[in-house]
Amino acid sequence: KRQGFPEIIYGEGKTVEQIISILEAIKAREEEVLITRVTEEAAVAIIKKHPEFTYSEISHLVYWKNQPITYDESKGYIAVICAGTSDLKVAEEAALTAEVLGCNVKRFYDVGVAGIHRLFDQLDAIQHATVSVVVAGMEGALPSVVGGLVSHPVIAVPTSIGYGANFHGLSALLTMLNSCASGISVVNIDNGFGGGYNAALIDRLASKG
Amino acid sequence: KRQGFPEIIYGEGKTVEQIISILEAIKAREEEVLITRVTEEAAVAIIKKHPEFTYSEISHLVYWKNQPITYDESKGYIAVICAGTSDLKVAEEAALTAEVLGCNVKRFYDVGVAGIHRLFDQLDAIQHATVSVVVAGMEGALPSVVGGLVSHPVIAVPTSIGYGANFHGLSALLTMLNSCASGISVVNIDNGFGGGYNAALIDRLASKG
Amino acid sequence: KRQGFPEIIYGEGKTVEQIISILEAIKAREEEVLITRVTEEAAVAIIKKHPEFTYSEISHLVYWKNQPITYDESKGYIAVICAGTSDLKVAEEAALTAEVLGCNVKRFYDVGVAGIHRLFDQLDAIQHATVSVVVAGMEGALPSVVGGLVSHPVIAVPTSIGYGANFHGLSALLTMLNSCASGISVVNIDNGFGGGYNAALIDRLASKG
Amino acid sequence: KRQGFPEIIYGEGKTVEQIISILEAIKAREEEVLITRVTEEAAVAIIKKHPEFTYSEISHLVYWKNQPITYDESKGYIAVICAGTSDLKVAEEAALTAEVLGCNVKRFYDVGVAGIHRLFDQLDAIQHATVSVVVAGMEGALPSVVGGLVSHPVIAVPTSIGYGANFHGLSALLTMLNSCASGISVVNIDNGFGGGYNAALIDRLASKG
Amino acid sequence: KRQGFPEIIYGEGKTVEQIISILEAIKAREEEVLITRVTEEAAVAIIKKHPEFTYSEISHLVYWKNQPITYDESKGYIAVICAGTSDLKVAEEAALTAEVLGCNVKRFYDVGVAGIHRLFDQLDAIQHATVSVVVAGMEGALPSVVGGLVSHPVIAVPTSIGYGANFHGLSALLTMLNSCASGISVVNIDNGFGGGYNAALIDRLASKG
Amino acid sequence: KRQGFPEIIYGEGKTVEQIISILEAIKAREEEVLITRVTEEAAVAIIKKHPEFTYSEISHLVYWKNQPITYDESKGYIAVICAGTSDLKVAEEAALTAEVLGCNVKRFYDVGVAGIHRLFDQLDAIQHATVSVVVAGMEGALPSVVGGLVSHPVIAVPTSIGYGANFHGLSALLTMLNSCASGISVVNIDNGFGGGYNAALIDRLASKG
Amino acid sequence: KRQGFPEIIYGEGKTVEQIISILEAIKAREEEVLITRVTEEAAVAIIKKHPEFTYSEISHLVYWKNQPITYDESKGYIAVICAGTSDLKVAEEAALTAEVLGCNVKRFYDVGVAGIHRLFDQLDAIQHATVSVVVAGMEGALPSVVGGLVSHPVIAVPTSIGYGANFHGLSALLTMLNSCASGISVVNIDNGFGGGYNAALIDRLASKG
Amino acid sequence: KRQGFPEIIYGEGKTVEQIISILEAIKAREEEVLITRVTEEAAVAIIKKHPEFTYSEISHLVYWKNQPITYDESKGYIAVICAGTSDLKVAEEAALTAEVLGCNVKRFYDVGVAGIHRLFDQLDAIQHATVSVVVAGMEGALPSVVGGLVSHPVIAVPTSIGYGANFHGLSALLTMLNSCASGISVVNIDNGFGGGYNAALIDRLASKG
Ligand SMILES: Nc1ncnc2c1ncn2[C@@H]1O[C@H](COP(=O)(O)O)[C@@H](O)[C@H]1O
Ligand SMILES: Nc1ncnc2c1ncn2[C@@H]1O[C@H](COP(=O)(O)O)[C@@H](O)[C@H]1O
Ligand SMILES: Nc1ncnc2c1ncn2[C@@H]1O[C@H](COP(=O)(O)O)[C@@H](O)[C@H]1O
Ligand SMILES: Nc1ncnc2c1ncn2[C@@H]1O[C@H](COP(=O)(O)O)[C@@H](O)[C@H]1O
Ligand SMILES: [Mg+2]
Ligand SMILES: [Mg+2]
Ligand SMILES: [Mg+2]
Ligand SMILES: [Mg+2]
Ligand SMILES: [Mg+2]
Ligand SMILES: [Mg+2]
Ligand SMILES: [Mg+2]
Ligand SMILES: [Mg+2]
Repeated sequence: KRQGFPEIIYGEGKTVEQIISILEAIKAREEEVLITRVTEEAAVAIIKKHPEFTYSEISHLVYWKNQPITYDESKGYIAVICAGTSDLKVAEEAALTAEVLGCNVKRFYDVGVAGIHRLFDQLDAIQHATVSVVVAGMEGALPSVVGGLVSHPVIAVPTSIGYGANFHGLSALLTMLNSCASGISVVNIDNGFGGGYNAALIDRLASKG
Repeated sequence: KRQGFPEIIYGEGKTVEQIISILEAIKAREEEVLITRVTEEAAVAIIKKHPEFTYSEISHLVYWKNQPITYDESKGYIAVICAGTSDLKVAEEAALTAEVLGCNVKRFYDVGVAGIHRLFDQLDAIQHATVSVVVAGMEGALPSVVGGLVSHPVIAVPTSIGYGANFHGLSALLTMLNSCASGISVVNIDNGFGGGYNAALIDRLASKG
Repeated sequence: KRQGFPEIIYGEGKTVEQIISILEAIKAREEEVLITRVTEEAAVAIIKKHPEFTYSEISHLVYWKNQPITYDESKGYIAVICAGTSDLKVAEEAALTAEVLGCNVKRFYDVGVAGIHRLFDQLDAIQHATVSVVVAGMEGALPSVVGGLVSHPVIAVPTSIGYGANFHGLSALLTMLNSCASGISVVNIDNGFGGGYNAALIDRLASKG
Repeated sequence: KRQGFPEIIYGEGKTVEQIISILEAIKAREEEVLITRVTEEAAVAIIKKHPEFTYSEISHLVYWKNQPITYDESKGYIAVICAGTSDLKVAEEAALTAEVLGCNVKRFYDVGVAGIHRLFDQLDAIQHATVSVVVAGMEGALPSVVGGLVSHPVIAVPTSIGYGANFHGLSALLTMLNSCASGISVVNIDNGFGGGYNAALIDRLASKG
Repeated sequence: KRQGFPEIIYGEGKTVEQIISILEAIKAREEEVLITRVTEEAAVAIIKKHPEFTYSEISHLVYWKNQPITYDESKGYIAVICAGTSDLKVAEEAALTAEVLGCNVKRFYDVGVAGIHRLFDQLDAIQHATVSVVVAGMEGALPSVVGGLVSHPVIAVPTSIGYGANFHGLSALLTMLNSCASGISVVNIDNGFGGGYNAALIDRLASKG
Repeated sequence: KRQGFPEIIYGEGKTVEQIISILEAIKAREEEVLITRVTEEAAVAIIKKHPEFTYSEISHLVYWKNQPITYDESKGYIAVICAGTSDLKVAEEAALTAEVLGCNVKRFYDVGVAGIHRLFDQLDAIQHATVSVVVAGMEGALPSVVGGLVSHPVIAVPTSIGYGANFHGLSALLTMLNSCASGISVVNIDNGFGGGYNAALIDRLASKG
Repeated sequence: KRQGFPEIIYGEGKTVEQIISILEAIKAREEEVLITRVTEEAAVAIIKKHPEFTYSEISHLVYWKNQPITYDESKGYIAVICAGTSDLKVAEEAALTAEVLGCNVKRFYDVGVAGIHRLFDQLDAIQHATVSVVVAGMEGALPSVVGGLVSHPVIAVPTSIGYGANFHGLSALLTMLNSCASGISVVNIDNGFGGGYNAALIDRLASKG
Repeated sequence: KRQGFPEIIYGEGKTVEQIISILEAIKAREEEVLITRVTEEAAVAIIKKHPEFTYSEISHLVYWKNQPITYDESKGYIAVICAGTSDLKVAEEAALTAEVLGCNVKRFYDVGVAGIHRLFDQLDAIQHATVSVVVAGMEGALPSVVGGLVSHPVIAVPTSIGYGANFHGLSALLTMLNSCASGISVVNIDNGFGGGYNAALIDRLASKG
C-alpha cells in the first residue's frame, strides 16, 4: 500500500488477463482498488469476473471500495472545475479518483474563461474548497483565472481537447506551466487521475491538520 | 504608399546608413515615415541627421509625421491592453504605431489575469472600443478573457516575457491561437507593430463605415 | 448572446445528445444557431430531430437561421480566397460562417501562389472587399502575396493540407505569423470558423461605420 | 494581499526604479514583501534605499519581513531536496520563499539519483515532512524516486542545468510530468519560487488542519 | 555475415513475399536468421512456409537458429531490466535478440523506480551481470538509478509507453540521454532489438576477453 | 580536388592558424581556394600573410583565384534573388560563391513578396537564367512565387532573418520544403554557400550540355 | 503548361471526380498528364474511365504519355539511389516521374550506408550520371556519402521510414540539410516526385547545354 | 569510488572554490580524479593550488593520476574517430577520458563521410579496436558508416558543430539514434566524456574477459 492510499493500476495497454491477475493480488491485501484508463470492453470483462467492482464510463475508471462513496459534511471539500462538455472525461477522472480516495468533491462544470460570469457566480463555493483541480483544454487559461481568485493550492490539468496548434494538449500544458498566478502546479496532459490524487493528498493533510 | 498608410521600415539588422538612405527616399514622396525596432544608438544617429523625427525609447519606434499625434473625440478608439510593467515595451509599440497611423488609442496597462478585478473596473471603457489589442506574455491568457467580454475584434499579441517553458513566447502564442473565445486573431511574438497596424486598419474601416 | 452574434456550438467531441440538448437551449432564446465540426452522422441525427437546420457537407457546419442567406448589394463583402480543391473544406467553413453571421461573401477559389496570374485576374474584385480571409496549406504563402496587394485587413487561415515537413499545418502557420506584408493576423490551423467570424466582426464594423 | 500571503514582485526585466516604486506601494499596506529574480546590481540599489530588506545572493531573492525567519518546532516542515551544487540556486529560491512565507524548511542538498544511498540515509527525515519540493536538472529523475518513497505531496521543480539534449530544462520537465509515481505535480523550469510557494500553501493547510 | 552475428532483417513495412525472399537468401549462407518487427499475420505466413522458424508473439521476433537457446553456466550473463507489464514487449525484444545471438540473459521485470525496494532485492544479481539493458517508458528514470548502482555498461532503451507529455517516447529518450550516472548509452525509442544487439556485442567481448 | 571545383574550407570555429595551414596545403595543389564564414578579424590575419586573397565583408567569404571574376557573355547566368537589405549577407555568399566557381551571376536584390510588382518588372531577366538561387527570411515565400514563374531549377535558401515565431529560420525552411511550386530544392538555413555551389554545379551542366 | 513539362496533379485528398475533371481539362490541351499520390481505389476508377492512363502501384503515380517510356542511349541519365525495400515507394516515385518527364533513369536500389561496399561496386555508373536522386529514411546518411563521391548535383529525398526518434522523417530531413558534402539540396519528406522533377529539370539543362 | 573508476566531477557551473573543495575530499580517498568542462580560468586556479593536476586545454579536462598515461601494447585499444578540426574538442574529451581511466586509445581524426577514402585507408586499424567512439557534428553520418564496417560496439557522440537546421546538435543526435547499422548506442550532444567512459567500461570487460 503506497502512501496510505489504495493501490492504483494503470490499465492502458494491459490485457484483461493482466489487469485481473494484478487486481486479485491487490484485493487479497487491500480494501480498495482503483484501475485507470480502462476500455469499455475490458471493464465489462473485469466486472463479469468481479461484480463488486464499479465502472465509470465517462472517466474510464474501474474501482472497488468496501464502503460507498459519500459526502462527509464534517470535512472540507475539493473543487473540481472545468468549462464544459468537452473536458468532462478528464474532470470526472479527477473527481472520482478523489472520491475513491475518500475525499469530498464539489463539481463546477460550466465555468469557462469565455463566459467568465459563470465562474463568478460560483466563486464563493470555489474559494471555500481546500484545494482546486482545474481542468482545461484548448488555450488552458482557466487555472490562471481561478488561481488569481483563490488562496488555496490549484492543481492544473491540461487536456488534449482542441485541434491544430493545440498540438494534442501542448498548448494548454505550456499555458499552465507559465501561469503568472501563484499557487498553481501542473500534471500531465489528460492526467485527471493525477489531478485527483494530488488534490486528495492535500485535502487529507488539511483534514488531519 | 502601401494601403493608404505611411510606409514602414523594419529597422532590425539594418545599418544606420541603410535606414537613413531608405527613409530619405520615402520622405521624398510620403507625409509620414515609421521605423520599427530601432536601437537607441541608431535612433540618436537618425535624429541627429533628421531632427524632425521622434524616438520613443520604450517602443523602439522612430517616426515622422507632418501633424502632431492628437486624440480626436469625434472618432472611436482602439483599446491597447496589458497586465503591466513587463509587457509595456510591446504594448507601447502597438499603441504608438496606431497613433502614428492616425487613430485614437486608450491604454489599459494594469489589467492582468492574475488580478482580474482591475480588468472589470475598466470593462466599460474597453467594451466601447472599436477594436482591442491585447498584449500578454507568460501564459498569454488575457486575450481569451477579454475576448469573452467584448463584442469587437481582438488582436492578440504574444510576448516573449517569461522563462523556462515559455520557450521565448511560444507558450503565449499557442494559448492565443487556441483561444475558445471567438473573435481573436494573432500576430507574431513581440510584434506590437503588427498588433497596432491591424487594429488601425480595422479602426479606419469603422470610422469610414 | 455573445457579441451580438448567434451563439456557436463547438461540435467536435460532443455526442449527438449533447449537441441537441445545447442547441435546444439556445434556440429557445436566439434567432440563429451555428454548430461547427459536425460529423455527417451527427448532422443527419440533428436534422432528423430539427429539420429546420441545414447541413453543409463540405464545411461540416450545421446551422439554423430564421432568414435565408442572401447577398445584399447595398453592403460591402468579404473575400474568401484559396488556391483550390484541397483547401475548400476550410475555405467553405469560413465563407459559410460569415454568411450565417449576416455578411456578403465573394469566393475566390482558384487563386494560388504557384499560378499567380489567376490571382491578378481577380485582383480588382479582391481589392474592393472590406476584409479578406486567405486560406492556405502547404507553404501557406498566399496571405503574404494578397496582403501586399490589398489595403484592408487580411485574416490568414493555415490548413493542415500537405505532408512531411508541413507537420500538420505548422509550416503554413509559421509562414503566416512571419509574413512581411503588414495587415495580416492569423487564426488556428484549419480554423475556418475563426477566419469567418473575425472577418464578419470587421465587416460589421465597416457597415456600421 | 493575494491569498493571505505577502505580495510577490517578479523582478526580472524590471528597472530598479520600477521595483522600488512597486515595493514602496506594497510596504505601505503589507507586513512582508518578496521580490524574485533580482540581479545583484538591482539588489544593491534596493537595499541602499531600503536597508531593512535582505538580499540572498544564491537565490536572487530580496525580501522584507517584520519578523525574523525562525524554525518553529511546534509545526511540521517542508523538505527541500536536490542532488547538489548545480541545483542550489533553484533549491534555495524554493526554500527561502517558503521561509519568508512563514514555514519551517529542512534542506536535503546532497541526495541525488546517481548516489541513491545518500537519499536512503535521510529518508526518515524526508518522509516526516508535510510536503517535499524536489529540485532536479539534467534527467530530472529525483522526484520520481522520492515520490515512490513518501506519502505526502511532492512539488517537482525542473532546472535548466545540463547541456545538449536537456534543451534548457525540457528534459527534466518532461520527466517530471510523466512520472509514474503518484502524488507529483510540477512547476515551470527553474521556478524555485513556485515550488516554495505551492509547498507553503500546502504546509499552511496541514498546520491549520 | 555482418559482425560475426546472424544477419538481421528489419520486418516492418516489408511484405511477406519480400521477407521470405530475403530470409531464403540468407538461410542459404548463414546458420541463424533473425527478423524483427514482424506482424502476427506475417509470422504465420513465414512459419507456414518455413516451419523451422519460431515466432515470439510478445516481442514480434521471428528467428531460426540451428541450435536451441540454452543457458550456459560457464559464461556471464546480460541483465534485462524493466518495471513491468507495459514495457514487456520491448524488454523481450531485447532479451530474445541477445539469446538468439548466443548470450545468457537474466530477466528482471518487476523492478521500477516507483517501487524501488524491488530493485534493491535483486541488486546483487544485477550487479554481477556483464552488461545491463534497462527498458523504461514514461519518465524513463530507471537507467539512471541502475547506472548509479552497477559498474558495468548500461544500454538504455526508452519506450513509447505513456501519454500526453511523453510525446511518444521523447520524454524517456531525453531522460536517458541526460542521465547524470556515468556508463549509460542510449538506443532509439522502442528499439529493444538495438538494446539486445549492443549488449550481446559487449557480452561477447567480455567472454572472449 | 572534389568535383572539379576549388576546395572549400569551412571557416567557422577554426583558428586563424588552422585556416592558414589548411589553405597553404590546398594552394600547393589547386588554382583556387574558397573559405566560408570567416570573421573580419580572421580575414585580416589571412590577407596579411597571403595578400593575394580577397575578403568580401558582406558575405564573409575569403578566396583566391588565379583569374579575375569576369562576366562571360557567351555563357548563361545564374539569377540570385532576394527581397532586400536584410538578406543581402546570405545572397552575396551565394552569388560570390558561384562567381568564384566560374559562373556568371545576375543579382536581383529588391524583389520581395510584399511588393510583388518589382518582381514582375524583372521577370524576363529572371526567366532567362539557367538556374535561380532564391534567398528569403521571415515567411520565406519568395521561392514559391519565383518557382511558379520560371521553368528552370530553383535553389531555395532560407535565412534566419526575423524574430519570434520564425524560430531562427525554421519558418522559412519549412515554407520552402513545402512549396507547391515544382522545381524547388532547399539547402540549410543561412547556407548561401550551398545555394551558390548547387547553382554552379547546375549552371556548369547547362554550359557543357 | 508549367515549365515546358506536363502539368502535375497532386492527387492526395482529392475525390475521384475532382481528379477526373481536372485531368480531362488538362488532356484537352497537353500531351502528357501526371497525377501523384493516387490511392489504388482512385487509380482503378480513373483508368476505368480513361484506359489510356497507366497506374504504377508501388509509386502511386497515374500518368498518360502519348509516347512510351524508353531509354535514349544518346543522352545522359539520372541515377536514382536507395538502400532497399523500405524506400522503394519513394524512389520509384522519383524514377518514374523523371521518366514521364522524358529522361533516362538508372536505378541503384541496394546501395545503403550500412553495407557500403555495394555502393562502391556501382560507383562508376553512379558517377557518370548527370544528376543523382538519393532517397533515404531512418538516419538519412546516404546522400552525404554519395555527395562526397560524385561531382554532379545530388537531390536528397528524406523518407518517413523508421520509428521512434525518426519523428516521421524529421531525422533524415535534418541529416540531409546539414550534410557536409557540397552539392546537395533537399526536398520534402517522402517527396519522391520533387526529387524526380528537380532531377529532370537539371538533366534537361545538361542535354540542351 | 563508483564502478572501480576514479570519481568524476562535473565542472560546469561550479565555482573554483566548490571544485577545489570537492576534489580535495576525493583526493583524500582515491588515486585518480577527473574534472570535466573546466574553463581555462578555473583550470589555472586549480593547478595553482594543486600543481600535481594536468589541464588539457582542448578537451577542458583537468585530472590527476598517480601514474602517467602510457600505451600498454599487451592490451587492446579504443578507436576514437572524427572528421577533423571542428570536432576535435569533443573527440579529445572522449580520448583523454578513456586514457585517464587506464585504457589504450588510438586517434583517427581525419576520417569524415565527405572524404570517405581516408576512412578506408585506416579501416584495418579501426576494425581491430575493441570498441569505437565516433564523434560527429552537422549531419552526424559517420557512426553509421563506421558501424557498417566494424564488428565491435560503437559509441556515437553527436556534437553541436554546425548551424541552422542542425539545431545545436539535434540533427546529429537524431541521425545516430536512427542508424540502420547495428551495434551503435548514443550519448548526449557534446558528451565526449560519456563516449570515453562507456568505451572504457567496455574495453575493461574485453581485457578482463
Ligand atoms: N470550429 C471552431 N474552432 C474554434 N473555436 C470554435 C469552433 N466552433 C466553436 N468555437 C468556439 O467554441 C465556443 C463554444 O464552445 P462549446 O461551449 O464547447 O460549444 C464558441 O463560442 C466559439 O468561441
Ligand atoms: N520567479 C517567479 N516565477 C514565476 N512567477 C513569479 C515569480 N515571481 C513572481 N511571480 C508571479 O508574478 C506575480 C507578480 O508579477 P508582477 O506584477 O509583474 O510583479 C506574482 O504574483 C507571482 O504570481
Ligand atoms: N527493429 C530494428 N530496429 C532498428 N534497426 C533494425 C531493426 N531490425 C533490423 N534493424 C537493422 O536493419 C538492418 C536490416 O535492414 P533491411 O535490410 O531493411 O532488412 C539490420 O542489419 C539492422 O541493422
Ligand atoms: N558555409 C558552408 N556551409 C556548409 N558547408 C560548407 C560551408 N563551407 C564549406 N562547407 C563544406 O565543408 C567542407 C570543408 O569542411 P572542412 O573539412 O571542415 O574544412 C567543404 O568541402 C564543404 O563541403
Ligand atoms: Mg491563488
Ligand atoms: Mg468576443
Ligand atoms: Mg496589405
Ligand atoms: Mg508518493
Ligand atoms: Mg554505473
Ligand atoms: Mg518553376
Ligand atoms: Mg559531390
Ligand atoms: Mg557494426
